[in-house]
Amino acid sequence: MTPTPPTVDLLVAPRWLLPIEPQGLVLEQHALIVDAGRIRDLLPLAEARQRYLPRQIIDLPQHAVLPGLVNLHTHAAMSLLRGIADDLPLMQWLQEHIWPAEGKHANPAFCEDGARLAFAEMIRSGTTCVNDMYFFPDATARVAGELGLRATVGLITTDFATAWAADADDCIHKGLELHDALKDKPLLRTIFAPHAPYTVSDAPLRKIRRYADELGIGIHMHVHETAHEVGSALQATGKRPWQRLKELELLGPDFIAVHMTQLSDEEIAEAAQLGVHIAHCPESNLKLASGFCPLARLQAAGVNIGIGTDGAASNNDLDLFGEMRTAALVAKAVAGDPQAVSAAQALHMATLGGARALGLDAEIGSLSVGKSADFIAVDLSRIATQPLYHLQSQLVYAAGRDQVSDVFVAGRALLRGGQFTTLDETRVLAKAGEWREKIKPYA
Amino acid sequence: MTPTPPTVDLLVAPRWLLPIEPQGLVLEQHALIVDAGRIRDLLPLAEARQRYLPRQIIDLPQHAVLPGLVNLHTHAAMSLLRGIADDLPLMQWLQEHIWPAEGKHANPAFCEDGARLAFAEMIRSGTTCVNDMYFFPDATARVAGELGLRATVGLITTDFATAWAADADDCIHKGLELHDALKDKPLLRTIFAPHAPYTVSDAPLRKIRRYADELGIGIHMHVHETAHEVGSALQATGKRPWQRLKELELLGPDFIAVHMTQLSDEEIAEAAQLGVHIAHCPESNLKLASGFCPLARLQAAGVNIGIGTDGAASNNDLDLFGEMRTAALVAKAVAGDPQAVSAAQALHMATLGGARALGLDAEIGSLSVGKSADFIAVDLSRIATQPLYHLQSQLVYAAGRDQVSDVFVAGRALLRGGQFTTLDETRVLAKAGEWREKIKPYA
Repeated sequence: MTPTPPTVDLLVAPRWLLPIEPQGLVLEQHALIVDAGRIRDLLPLAEARQRYLPRQIIDLPQHAVLPGLVNLHTHAAMSLLRGIADDLPLMQWLQEHIWPAEGKHANPAFCEDGARLAFAEMIRSGTTCVNDMYFFPDATARVAGELGLRATVGLITTDFATAWAADADDCIHKGLELHDALKDKPLLRTIFAPHAPYTVSDAPLRKIRRYADELGIGIHMHVHETAHEVGSALQATGKRPWQRLKELELLGPDFIAVHMTQLSDEEIAEAAQLGVHIAHCPESNLKLASGFCPLARLQAAGVNIGIGTDGAASNNDLDLFGEMRTAALVAKAVAGDPQAVSAAQALHMATLGGARALGLDAEIGSLSVGKSADFIAVDLSRIATQPLYHLQSQLVYAAGRDQVSDVFVAGRALLRGGQFTTLDETRVLAKAGEWREKIKPYA
Repeated sequence: MTPTPPTVDLLVAPRWLLPIEPQGLVLEQHALIVDAGRIRDLLPLAEARQRYLPRQIIDLPQHAVLPGLVNLHTHAAMSLLRGIADDLPLMQWLQEHIWPAEGKHANPAFCEDGARLAFAEMIRSGTTCVNDMYFFPDATARVAGELGLRATVGLITTDFATAWAADADDCIHKGLELHDALKDKPLLRTIFAPHAPYTVSDAPLRKIRRYADELGIGIHMHVHETAHEVGSALQATGKRPWQRLKELELLGPDFIAVHMTQLSDEEIAEAAQLGVHIAHCPESNLKLASGFCPLARLQAAGVNIGIGTDGAASNNDLDLFGEMRTAALVAKAVAGDPQAVSAAQALHMATLGGARALGLDAEIGSLSVGKSADFIAVDLSRIATQPLYHLQSQLVYAAGRDQVSDVFVAGRALLRGGQFTTLDETRVLAKAGEWREKIKPYA
């Protein structure tokens, strides 16, 4: 007697499956089996149909299915400040537009509505996991939870008072409260987020190091974003910020350094040796003229790299397809080598690289049996992605955010056939319109 | 007695009108009046409804209407080679993949089907005018004519034999025949297209100069694409290619120099003084690691610049929205100045700059009364483009090709509500699939 095949939640049958691990593998005529929110199996389609009894079948005959993208650095709520001031010098942009607008409006309601708008854009463009840094991380976490998005929220810390907290100690205190509050939320995690070397002094950084060790929380920080940052620290203290962070023992495998456009050979070697992860934000670096992150050199040194969009105010979108493409293209020109940062490597950075930086690579980042079922589908039948010779090239160099059709996190659909399933798009847009009227005077 | 208002073909009532000229002007509550293929008027909506009796009204309450984009450099038919070989050194890419595939397949049918696929992608993403360079320009012209796209087809010239012509003289001869054949096609023009300094010798370049003067045809040529090109010419002849072209008197206001990543200060000054136009192809330059075109310096010198996608084999799309954005972003990082190449300047390059380079600025490139009605509409109500503070920022830094809803050339709709009106998308995709099977061995 043949045993009855086990019943499972979902069988996904796409034209192509790109597991990311092992790198470069593209499966055709295969199925992804999902059960109880996890990847139960990955096997030839014919076999899958015999071995499992799925409650639901999703046929995607013109689509690639790949792991959901990981946005390794963003300020979600700043989506409400998208394009309020562009083409300006950094300090004028911050002092005359961003900071006044934030000073007046960055309250919990702003952060909730901004995060909802940002997460809508991210889900629509294939992001399933986000590493955020902004005021009121509790609001951001609430919205991620409401929508079913996987999020690591930054416990933002600055020396100076903000709408969220009075000083660095207050930031850490409120952060630890939030960390406790999220303990039973499997999709939500926290990460210390000291803003930058020039906004956080040594004492709170030492505290963060201690709590990070005690509680197993990572650290997420802007580092060496601009030559100005490095130069002024050198002038004031005789030390480059990297050196200072190293002496404070902040740099290690639980540290995500964002931007890193200014790096000596020695610093690159140290980043590799210490196991620091890089959140590369190419479009923000270009738009603010911050400099070029030496991506190919970091890669050659063995540094783990993920990709972030940064906030919408300096990008001005939250589209990891665009960001992957820019990362791969710009890296070639910077390295003077068309072989630098291949399509496969860009896809790796935007998935498993980001997952690893967040300490989540056992859970997400590749389509591997046992991992959480965080995956997306991309419709490649459009004119802009035909003919198709190489799947990974097409995903990185030709596909657009609009081609993402389906998004799943932990086996739950957030987008099906291009339509949101956990979010009221009309309401999100109405709220954006309301905030626009309030924020307009700062534009 | 009030005179009866004149009947006109079309009244377009968008949320925003961006005429491009004068630069920076954004009109709200205005209408575009189109009659007999031309822009008849541009006036406040209330007034427009009183002064004209339109046969058709198009309400676009969430859209921006702007001039159609001008793709100043492409190889349309190469869309069939999209992504056949990526992340390779230039010579390996050409010698092992592109040239063998072209050698076997670049025939008139390939060029027709490839141009149709490329033009479909261009129309879908808001391009209304294309400056092409490829074999069988007659095939390309035929397809542009069939679809109603405005095109300047390059009379490609190389010393060596191709599927199209036996040698440079044959190229010129066939080119002049095509020039004659297109005389009564108002949307189709020709341009001499000597391929590059390293593929065309002095004698045919002199002939081209003479015919260009006699017939009023422009010249379109790859120039200083890579350091290798400049270095090997210097080594072989003691002259940089720019110097040689100058001595041949090729450089002038009818000359479009494509790429131009390698430029001395003197060459930039000469480009301005001679009135040479630049076709800037940022994504191709990045992907092939050709170098960075000094956009801000060219602009500061007063050189007219347009934007091109290059062919899909080195991009890998034909999306001028993406290309505008990349141009503006990369220029800032290259100049080390976030104020370099503003959104308004990027839009100008992709419209009027390109039109001027083609000698078509009296006809297209801005929404000015009397010009041809070549315009597009972009739906800005999507999540990725809300809230909206500044129209031009949003178009360049946040909008995507998928937001183009309508495309008109000379008053005729090529795209309405995202649907093609002159093209059978299913057929185009089927042909792309057929060619894929033939070309696959070269991938």
